[in-house]
Amino acid sequence: MGFTITEKIFSKHCKRDCSAGEVVMAPVDGCMIHDITGPLAINVFHEMEGEKVFDPDKVIMLFDHQIPADSISAAENHVMMRKFAKEQGIHNYDIKEGVCHQVVPEKGRVKPGDIVVGSDSHTCAYGALGAFSTGIGSTDMAYALKFGELYFRIPDTIKIEAFGKFQSRVGPKDLILNLAGDIGADGATYRALEFTGSAFSDMDIPGRMTCSNMAIEMGAKAGIVPPDKKTWDYLKGRCECTPFSLSSDSDAEFFEVKSYDIGEINPKVAVPHNVDNVVDVSEVAGRHIDQVFIGSCTNGRYEDFLEAAEVLGDDKFADDVRVIIVPASKDEYLKVLKAGLIEKFVDAGALVEAPCCGPCMGGAFGLLAPGEVSLSTSNRNFRGRQGSTESFVYLSSPATAAASAVKGKITDPREV
Amino acid sequence: MGFTITEKIFSKHCKRDCSAGEVVMAPVDGCMIHDITGPLAINVFHEMEGEKVFDPDKVIMLFDHQIPADSISAAENHVMMRKFAKEQGIHNYDIKEGVCHQVVPEKGRVKPGDIVVGSDSHTCAYGALGAFSTGIGSTDMAYALKFGELYFRIPDTIKIEAFGKFQSRVGPKDLILNLAGDIGADGATYRALEFTGSAFSDMDIPGRMTCSNMAIEMGAKAGIVPPDKKTWDYLKGRCECTPFSLSSDSDAEFFEVKSYDIGEINPKVAVPHNVDNVVDVSEVAGRHIDQVFIGSCTNGRYEDFLEAAEVLGDDKFADDVRVIIVPASKDEYLKVLKAGLIEKFVDAGALVEAPCCGPCMGGAFGLLAPGEVSLSTSNRNFRGRQGSTESFVYLSSPATAAASAVKGKITDPREV
Repeated sequence: MGFTITEKIFSKHCKRDCSAGEVVMAPVDGCMIHDITGPLAINVFHEMEGEKVFDPDKVIMLFDHQIPADSISAAENHVMMRKFAKEQGIHNYDIKEGVCHQVVPEKGRVKPGDIVVGSDSHTCAYGALGAFSTGIGSTDMAYALKFGELYFRIPDTIKIEAFGKFQSRVGPKDLILNLAGDIGADGATYRALEFTGSAFSDMDIPGRMTCSNMAIEMGAKAGIVPPDKKTWDYLKGRCECTPFSLSSDSDAEFFEVKSYDIGEINPKVAVPHNVDNVVDVSEVAGRHIDQVFIGSCTNGRYEDFLEAAEVLGDDKFADDVRVIIVPASKDEYLKVLKAGLIEKFVDAGALVEAPCCGPCMGGAFGLLAPGEVSLSTSNRNFRGRQGSTESFVYLSSPATAAASAVKGKITDPREV
Repeated sequence: MGFTITEKIFSKHCKRDCSAGEVVMAPVDGCMIHDITGPLAINVFHEMEGEKVFDPDKVIMLFDHQIPADSISAAENHVMMRKFAKEQGIHNYDIKEGVCHQVVPEKGRVKPGDIVVGSDSHTCAYGALGAFSTGIGSTDMAYALKFGELYFRIPDTIKIEAFGKFQSRVGPKDLILNLAGDIGADGATYRALEFTGSAFSDMDIPGRMTCSNMAIEMGAKAGIVPPDKKTWDYLKGRCECTPFSLSSDSDAEFFEVKSYDIGEINPKVAVPHNVDNVVDVSEVAGRHIDQVFIGSCTNGRYEDFLEAAEVLGDDKFADDVRVIIVPASKDEYLKVLKAGLIEKFVDAGALVEAPCCGPCMGGAFGLLAPGEVSLSTSNRNFRGRQGSTESFVYLSSPATAAASAVKGKITDPREV
């Protein structure tokens, strides 16, 4: 019997053949902490008399949720974390680089075959580069920071095979929303998703990041795309690594295999208040919106903004919609700026903010009043996620978000 | 006996000769409300059964302090104000245009000789265009909204005569800080300042805005620059108005006349925790800073950012300083962007945020932890103004702020 990618990654780390279902203590290649959950992890680290982290070069620290500090307590958290970074010799990207799940790959802090943990649920995003990466709690993180290893139950794998070509104005976000709707919010709980087929091999790294990012929205521990030439090309100049092959064996055992023709997928919208409450945009077209957010670790890259800008064309955003645009990192911001898109968006009536998590989790800004409605390219639409528990969050692709921002109501991007 | 500009403005509005000291009921040409104080005014307006505002075209509404909404209650305030604007037929600039004191002149909502009130203390800023404009409380604003007039005690005038040429890297902010230091925080209480002499006639409108803006920091009700060709040129295309002459009579009675040679002014810094605690930058050079804010209604215009960019040159901002840049309006943002300055600042390590009040008043973002130090181009450094009551805010020009951001400590911009 062969092995899945996930089994191979754990086997290599544990230096023996490991199979799904086994509980193993595995070394980790990276630990990511940010300004929200990092302080909890550091406090536990101190409580357990951690003294020194296992390897400062394998700890990634940055601030992205509440930046620049949106409260005195946030500022105090930042100060505490800066002190920890200095004491421990950890490189701290601070508030300057952007959203964790964009910055970690961008800075070459993850590579194919790695096991990376982050105290953030969307850490599964790095599966886009062929890593097993997953979100963990802050207590687990304290242990990982100290010992550089962690207990894992090696997950079963659900193999997603996707073929075909997207319709115009349909893309990776529609695919992953479609999957969430199909598999359900708990349909992949404690499993790994493996994203395969020509749809994924054709897909660029930003698109893969969008898909891997949302694996957790089906309960999955990981969402892995087998590394290929695109992966290794992306990593060139970011980290030192020699290309190798990593894919599931043809006789690997999968929990389930699901096949999709992406050409059949229409623009999708996740309707309040669950990510798996997914419908074709046509079913909700015309619904009122107050705010549109284009950004986040899910859809905050240059390619996302380019798509939005193409949909925008020479139009303006609707007067009574607040359009908030937040590139996911400094690098993405500069790409977007140099391509003239920031000028275009601001001219059309949007606010463009410095890289950060933005309105995604209803933290620093972009909060909704009771009764207000947001259409968001981010990854979660739970009740109260972006403000009042009586507000409503729809999720969509950047194309659908841009079309809707132009028309002032939920709109099929193929009709703009 | 002749009249001061202030007396002339009130005489015209009251249709009789009025002199300083008199209490008059004067009609107002504009009422400005924003997201912080506007809700209070609107509530009182409703309590007094205001029903309809005196003239919706003379009411200016916008949101700048907590945008995009930084809390659910802020979002609720915005919703309430939008509803009021709609009911009353008031044009609401909402979150899209920028900081009130930049947007009001930019949109031609104030002109020479006007009386404009705003429920914000820095409403005195429009004196830069030769208006009598002043900050009022929210109860007074409710009355003004309803009746379009308000009681004023016509203030005495302190005439500031300024001559000469600034040294390189010294400018209007240094002049007004110098004045604040000289006159004191209560030295002009309930008086009008009149800014005259070649220094002011040579000064561009943005520089005049910086000076008029801070009149309140000496307690003044207004800080008026006599309108001249520059004023009328600025207003061209912004509002319909025919140039006229407005200056104090040569035999007008001034409470005091103070003269300055601006060539003698060095870069100035207001030291915590009072705006009139002003010293030459050399006295505090080398002091540690954690954060630099370039922006606000005081110094958030293209000319301010150009000066900062010139000081920055090809340098980067110091690694351990958080540099936050916030243009004061959408128009200024686009000017700064098109000149390549946003790219330059971001590339150098700054965060550039969408137009808003930003860290100026420690509201939405950029708050300081206990012990932290900010250097800010804004207008107030009161204890706790930008976060913790145990933090420290220094005020300076954009040139000094940029030089300090590069060196990571308070720095004389003439030495960079």
